[in-house]
Amino acid sequence: MATLQLASWATNLTFTDLTEPVIAAAVNSVYNWAGCAIGGYSQDAPRIAQVTTQPFFGGPPTSSILGSNGSTSDEYADAQLAALINGIASHIDDYDDTHLETDHPSGRPVASALLAVAEWQGPVTGREFLTAFVAGVEAECKLGLGVTPEHYDVGWHITSTTGSVGAAVAVGKLIGLDTARMQNAIGVAATQVVGMQEYFGSMTKSFHVGRAAQGGMLGALLAKNNYTSSMQGLEAKYGWLHVVSTRENATAYFDQLGDVWEIEKNTFKPFPCGIVLHPTIDAAIQLRNETIRQGKDILSVKSINLQVNSEVLVLTGKADPTTGLEGKFSVYHAAAIGYLYGEATPAYFTDDAVKNSTVIEFRKKVNVTTDDEQFNKDQATITLEFDDGSTLEKHIEHAIGSLENPLTDADLMKKFINQVSRQIGEVRAAKAHAAFKAIVNMTDVGQLRAMY
Amino acid sequence: MATLQLASWATNLTFTDLTEPVIAAAVNSVYNWAGCAIGGYSQDAPRIAQVTTQPFFGGPPTSSILGSNGSTSDEYADAQLAALINGIASHIDDYDDTHLETDHPSGRPVASALLAVAEWQGPVTGREFLTAFVAGVEAECKLGLGVTPEHYDVGWHITSTTGSVGAAVAVGKLIGLDTARMQNAIGVAATQVVGMQEYFGSMTKSFHVGRAAQGGMLGALLAKNNYTSSMQGLEAKYGWLHVVSTRENATAYFDQLGDVWEIEKNTFKPFPCGIVLHPTIDAAIQLRNETIRQGKDILSVKSINLQVNSEVLVLTGKADPTTGLEGKFSVYHAAAIGYLYGEATPAYFTDDAVKNSTVIEFRKKVNVTTDDEQFNKDQATITLEFDDGSTLEKHIEHAIGSLENPLTDADLMKKFINQVSRQIGEVRAAKAHAAFKAIVNMTDVGQLRAMY
Repeated sequence: MATLQLASWATNLTFTDLTEPVIAAAVNSVYNWAGCAIGGYSQDAPRIAQVTTQPFFGGPPTSSILGSNGSTSDEYADAQLAALINGIASHIDDYDDTHLETDHPSGRPVASALLAVAEWQGPVTGREFLTAFVAGVEAECKLGLGVTPEHYDVGWHITSTTGSVGAAVAVGKLIGLDTARMQNAIGVAATQVVGMQEYFGSMTKSFHVGRAAQGGMLGALLAKNNYTSSMQGLEAKYGWLHVVSTRENATAYFDQLGDVWEIEKNTFKPFPCGIVLHPTIDAAIQLRNETIRQGKDILSVKSINLQVNSEVLVLTGKADPTTGLEGKFSVYHAAAIGYLYGEATPAYFTDDAVKNSTVIEFRKKVNVTTDDEQFNKDQATITLEFDDGSTLEKHIEHAIGSLENPLTDADLMKKFINQVSRQIGEVRAAKAHAAFKAIVNMTDVGQLRAMY
Repeated sequence: MATLQLASWATNLTFTDLTEPVIAAAVNSVYNWAGCAIGGYSQDAPRIAQVTTQPFFGGPPTSSILGSNGSTSDEYADAQLAALINGIASHIDDYDDTHLETDHPSGRPVASALLAVAEWQGPVTGREFLTAFVAGVEAECKLGLGVTPEHYDVGWHITSTTGSVGAAVAVGKLIGLDTARMQNAIGVAATQVVGMQEYFGSMTKSFHVGRAAQGGMLGALLAKNNYTSSMQGLEAKYGWLHVVSTRENATAYFDQLGDVWEIEKNTFKPFPCGIVLHPTIDAAIQLRNETIRQGKDILSVKSINLQVNSEVLVLTGKADPTTGLEGKFSVYHAAAIGYLYGEATPAYFTDDAVKNSTVIEFRKKVNVTTDDEQFNKDQATITLEFDDGSTLEKHIEHAIGSLENPLTDADLMKKFINQVSRQIGEVRAAKAHAAFKAIVNMTDVGQLRAMY
């Protein structure tokens, strides 16, 4: 009954069901997504995808490319192309928000599909938009919880594999599907399982998000036109939950829909890379500051000795990254740049940054040992050994950006402005921030793009 | 090394590598696909998909919708839309060809993507087209062999899950990708795993084929523009083969590329439904003819007792289908219409046909027992019991359409004309048959559409 249960809950959800913390979390999630989508558009991946697909996705330009900065003809595209490009751009920096229990940046495919459809099919109010957004995020997170950790452990990229269903639910909600059509929409979305971890460190990781946004949107639109799929696409023997996971009782989390809000558990990344690297970077930055405070030469470090959970090496063990995207999957690179520069913004995960000779030299100084008894995934200890034999140590109990040590509103704004400015400049960045922060009161979210 | 091995083999393949039987099999496969795509366009699914996606896939109309029969504006679309619609139309009748070892209709996503790109990027000769087609079919079949039967048994729809990679290889071959780009193309295609068996009996089963065609094509086009994925997308720990299958040594079949041609093992369906139903239908038709020959009243049958392999009930156990698409997954329906009408063309798998009261009455007379020791999947025995107590029995050792009992060229032509005529009439059907049959000598396959 999981598919019916989810479809019924989503179609009946109203804005008044959302609590204040849920609304606040949704607004933050949407505007953090927008920041990523605007800033990420400066990378190669979304542009290659846009050039490649322009010959087909050539429908009337109804929906905005968030980070575009050129002529009017570049700023709008049809809803499918916009979803693909904004999806890729929003994920390419690995700077999104994260639902820690399922280890996945929730809301990326959802927001990418939803804004594109809202602009196309609008006017859609801020409240309608946020209600549909929350429906989609809850859907994908409940689905993700149901298959965690087996699904991720076998190699799926859970962000996009669940995101396709989240996008279908969100778009289906926005366009007013009834429960049966919502079930069909979930089915079409669920049968498109996009994303494997082998593609981490390449442009294809971000393609997963854009493609999941497209697939979910397509599911909702096909269902609206009476395309048939299944009434039990999630729980059936040969449906999503059983095909992509061996987990028992995978549907149990659907009983908590509307009682436990997953979006409240979202955290925001302080660093543009996988969440498991954050304690390492946090420790490295703090040690750099301490080194300077003690009057030591930061370049006089002989070795950087890191203790972490074993998952860190599984996910981010690339010792010798050769591209910026690979750098996001190298704990060696993360420790090196955190220590060398005292920050870890997108500027330190570029092709040039990973090829810098000092960075390469410092990556080689990093030794990693793993200890799953002493270290959870959000913990790390770094011990620096200097040429003079002295040492400095820092233990991170909860990395910055974790639920226990979250970014403040000021941190979030600083992050948004930083990443958005590099693409559209500071003045427009400030305008974009103001626009997305005030989304709840908008009478037509289709006006967002013109506000910055 | 499987990804490199496949990419290298495909990029180096030339028409002169193809043997006569391989070329003949490829021509038959392409023209049988075309027949399905033209005839299947009369169904709802491709039309709903076309109407739904027209707002976005609105690029220049470079590629043909094979079964369209209206104004010029309906007959051509951009390559992505054409691939989707032809893919859906070619599979909606379940009338395609089948690679029996992997139980999947090979070449549907491949042909759907390939013709659309050939028309768009042409001129492409018949030889170039067939070479690329064979490359794609061999790729998907070797991949399918590597994960059979575990992959199918867990619930994946192998036609589309492998077809996406096949389409990428075929399109990549056609547009001249080098080996490294071909590896990237395979990666983008492989990470899009579309299709689960829960959607059998609904329009979504055919969507799988269209979507796999689109996804594979997109993989090739992105790779051409230097979009990065992985050099070992198939064999890596978190790549395709391991994520979607538990099979050991899954890459062994790649060693046979170019030595064992999978396309030669293709069979062609005499009936528009799953291959496991064919022995049942074959027996039912023969028993009907025998009943009449003996002067008995065919309506005086009390029970239709069927013995088959247990897989038949797993895949086609719907006792009470309510739509034509569900009828294709009902061994009860298959036995009933085979016996009642003495044939099983698409006309007997419509919504009206499954709701016919005599058909419903006869479905209830069908009793199924399974015996895996005595019956392979291509075998069946039916015992009729008449009201007067007499019985008639027919055992099928190899169903018509199997490798041991294949359709003749005349059968194939009859099938093509039958299915195509219902959509575009007999005169055009004959022209279409002649055009596709002569594809090997064409200087530009882009002229096909104008020839019928």
